[in-house]
Amino acid sequence: MQRQETIAAALPRKYPEQVVLVVTRGGDGRGNIMAVGWTGIASGDPLMFMLGIDEGAYTYELIRATRTFVVAFPSDQMGAAVLHAGAVHGRNRDKLAETGLATAPALRVAAPLLSDAVANFECELADIFQPGDCPLIFGRVLVAHVNTDPALQRLYTVGPGHAMAGVRVAGPIKTSQ
Amino acid sequence: MQRQETIAAALPRKYPEQVVLVVTRGGDGRGNIMAVGWTGIASGDPLMFMLGIDEGAYTYELIRATRTFVVAFPSDQMGAAVLHAGAVHGRNRDKLAETGLATAPALRVAAPLLSDAVANFECELADIFQPGDCPLIFGRVLVAHVNTDPALQRLYTVGPGHAMAGVRVAGPIKTSQ
Repeated sequence: MQRQETIAAALPRKYPEQVVLVVTRGGDGRGNIMAVGWTGIASGDPLMFMLGIDEGAYTYELIRATRTFVVAFPSDQMGAAVLHAGAVHGRNRDKLAETGLATAPALRVAAPLLSDAVANFECELADIFQPGDCPLIFGRVLVAHVNTDPALQRLYTVGPGHAMAGVRVAGPIKTSQ
Repeated sequence: MQRQETIAAALPRKYPEQVVLVVTRGGDGRGNIMAVGWTGIASGDPLMFMLGIDEGAYTYELIRATRTFVVAFPSDQMGAAVLHAGAVHGRNRDKLAETGLATAPALRVAAPLLSDAVANFECELADIFQPGDCPLIFGRVLVAHVNTDPALQRLYTVGPGHAMAGVRVAGPIKTSQ
């Protein structure tokens, strides 16, 4: 049964919610990283991701300037790094180095891959569209990479206050096949 | 460590992925329902959801015609209904009735709420934007409703072939607070 609730009080029923890391590289050669929860697939062929990234973010500035970036699915071992990436600004500090995350060169973009992520998607900026209070970045995937450990699982935001954890399937799986 | 992979082979590392039900009502009074996985938050204030809904879908036609709809978070008990909603077209059959899902009247829109969903969000069409191969519907939330059972959990697509199940937090929760 449903009861009416304020929008703010109802929204936490969305959890667990996916979270991605957006990796960029500035003109000074320094990598930068940002955690983004407002994300989803926006096109199948070509594959595109939507990313809600506010105009004040250094990542927004770097995506506009370089028109390329990496979308990484963090693993459930990376909760502390994702929290750090989401908590501080990267304009005047080396946030990526501070997280301690290992990186590897990408093939087509300047931004690095995250070695320990579940998967990395090299992207070019396809479009920016703002229907509400946040610019939405649409990234077209150029190249994909996966972790050599297939057992690695994604990280999710599992509750308010940026509570981060892994999740596992619970209960019976229904399938149409 | 990362290894390059085709985009199609890398994308399944996205699972578990959120899924929502989009509920509409046609001019004939009949409710309709569609499962959408290409979704995410697109604005905070006002709250907006992005929904990837292809032009051939009856739901797309009804959203264009009525400019209103409901976004419901299905519960992990609703896997079979979500599979049915995703598997058949609703133009010439009463798909919502076929799922057996109970409904309740909404406050501001013609489309019904799903009584057993985790939450329902009454929406009006804010914008349509197409950066790739699928129109993206942006819905502005007008009114929210939650299930009176706070223990009810969301359903996710947990693997290829529309495998649907609930998920539970696994492992330690990291938080910045």
